[in-house]
Amino acid sequence: MIKCIIVGYGFLGKRLARELAAGKIAGVKLAGIASSKGYIYRADGLAHEDLPERIDRARGFEEAPASEMIRRELADLLVELTPTNIESGEPGLSHIRQALEEGMDVVTANKGPIALAFEELSSLAEERGSLLLYEATVGGGIPLISLQKRCLMADELLSLRGILNGTTNYILSRMHFEEMTFELALREAQMLGIAERDPTLDLEGVDTALKLLILANSLMGLRKKLSEVKIRGITKVTSEAIAAAKESGMTIKLIGVVGENGLSVAPRLIRLNDPLCVHGTLNAVNFNHRILGNLTIIGEGAGESTVSALLNDIYEVVRARSRRL
Amino acid sequence: MIKCIIVGYGFLGKRLARELAAGKIAGVKLAGIASSKGYIYRADGLAHEDLPERIDRARGFEEAPASEMIRRELADLLVELTPTNIESGEPGLSHIRQALEEGMDVVTANKGPIALAFEELSSLAEERGSLLLYEATVGGGIPLISLQKRCLMADELLSLRGILNGTTNYILSRMHFEEMTFELALREAQMLGIAERDPTLDLEGVDTALKLLILANSLMGLRKKLSEVKIRGITKVTSEAIAAAKESGMTIKLIGVVGENGLSVAPRLIRLNDPLCVHGTLNAVNFNHRILGNLTIIGEGAGESTVSALLNDIYEVVRARSRRL
Repeated sequence: MIKCIIVGYGFLGKRLARELAAGKIAGVKLAGIASSKGYIYRADGLAHEDLPERIDRARGFEEAPASEMIRRELADLLVELTPTNIESGEPGLSHIRQALEEGMDVVTANKGPIALAFEELSSLAEERGSLLLYEATVGGGIPLISLQKRCLMADELLSLRGILNGTTNYILSRMHFEEMTFELALREAQMLGIAERDPTLDLEGVDTALKLLILANSLMGLRKKLSEVKIRGITKVTSEAIAAAKESGMTIKLIGVVGENGLSVAPRLIRLNDPLCVHGTLNAVNFNHRILGNLTIIGEGAGESTVSALLNDIYEVVRARSRRL
Repeated sequence: MIKCIIVGYGFLGKRLARELAAGKIAGVKLAGIASSKGYIYRADGLAHEDLPERIDRARGFEEAPASEMIRRELADLLVELTPTNIESGEPGLSHIRQALEEGMDVVTANKGPIALAFEELSSLAEERGSLLLYEATVGGGIPLISLQKRCLMADELLSLRGILNGTTNYILSRMHFEEMTFELALREAQMLGIAERDPTLDLEGVDTALKLLILANSLMGLRKKLSEVKIRGITKVTSEAIAAAKESGMTIKLIGVVGENGLSVAPRLIRLNDPLCVHGTLNAVNFNHRILGNLTIIGEGAGESTVSALLNDIYEVVRARSRRL
């Protein structure tokens, strides 16, 4: 039985904890959950009724840092779900590093550590014989990383293009279909909870750039840094520009590209007929392979769907461990 | 070193043989190729220059049935690529059965045996500890089977919808965009080699039904037969019907569905904005999962791209065998 701890107890953490406590993954026991306030831990497993709304009011609450619980004697698997920090990657980076050093496996949805320290963390995992799985960092539940690593191993990935941010895609879709201004579409997205109160990272293309970096480094063996991604956001996209595109059967989307000219994120013209051209909060990635040619995969890039990616990664940990025994 | 034989030496067989002879998959040696005329076999491997245009004119040609070569002492892996026969599944069915009984692994692009005898063949493979991989039977190189089996194991597949036949999709796309009649679009498709001289199985929806059956039985654990699929083809779709759909931002596509009401294939209205709504010869499948929600995957469903699926399946055989050692 694999003992799993979840660090980061927001929307994703709570939703995942419920699935694990309900025994949705055979062979995995949820032993602990942590927020920034502290943690609760029970070696024989937390049941559904043990899952609190707030950790600091739960029975057995320890007012201590999560790092206290990230120890091989206490758990086999860390699921790291603290908020993304794009400057330092913390606290996720330290949590993941600690777990890998302890010889634990790690599953994460935290873009920061994977985008900023992919090489360090993947080398560390390999050195310790641990698994580091991060499907949930890009495109929510859409299997992008595992698709390439488990289904398309014999082909050669030459380039990719992606719509990787639901917030900006929602805004651009409203501008296209409802002929709204950027400001109005943004306000609507904020009211609906699609855009955050401070939407800067999304609008300026930084969120897309982080995800692109993860895809490029993990799938194409590159060693790029965020500073090497050319980034332009959507704040300068006008209703007029979109209307003009529309007249030619096209629109404007925020597209990240990994190709011959490196990594870039920018608003780009795209044909409405292009399979990559998805609307609303959908995400889509188009891969170009040597033999297969173009393959496009589309789904919800955030929210509930991300729980699916976490569960699939956890399942893979169970599968890999059972093989090793 | 895994010794591989290819039975069926048409477009796919030749293209795959070139990749294997060029050593594109480490750990695999191409030992033999067979057509309906006979075979050539060389235990130490066929090199690129040994690959003939026609087998019966090659050095070392044996005028004997391929079954003579499907033996454990001669090969570890059969790649079965004979033409699809939807009545009996032959000769592919006998080839695959023989290989599995010999304890060989099997990779195939042949829809017949997998659609008609999935239960028998998959049980036989399990019993003998052999692998039976058939990604190439549906959607060309688009990873549909492996996507579900290797990337989405922890989620639950509830239903699926697919555009699974490039010929009919080409015809319907031309009718939509160029306002052609069905007859004209069909003639054009035949001239371009997109439709076969006898396109009945495609136009009547039978090809789509076979593929739908493979997806339903292998991914959703159903035990359906071809006779249980409700099938209606596209021969009755008129320009007027498509024009009317177009006025409402929709079109008509030949869509296969596996859902609460069983399996069906029929021309259906679909919104142009729906990610599943792809054009030309593209194929697309939309999966609906319990947690992930909707996921759509799009690519070329025939030709060159199918070679990618064969190579990925062969790669998986190498990976699985290396684990067993």
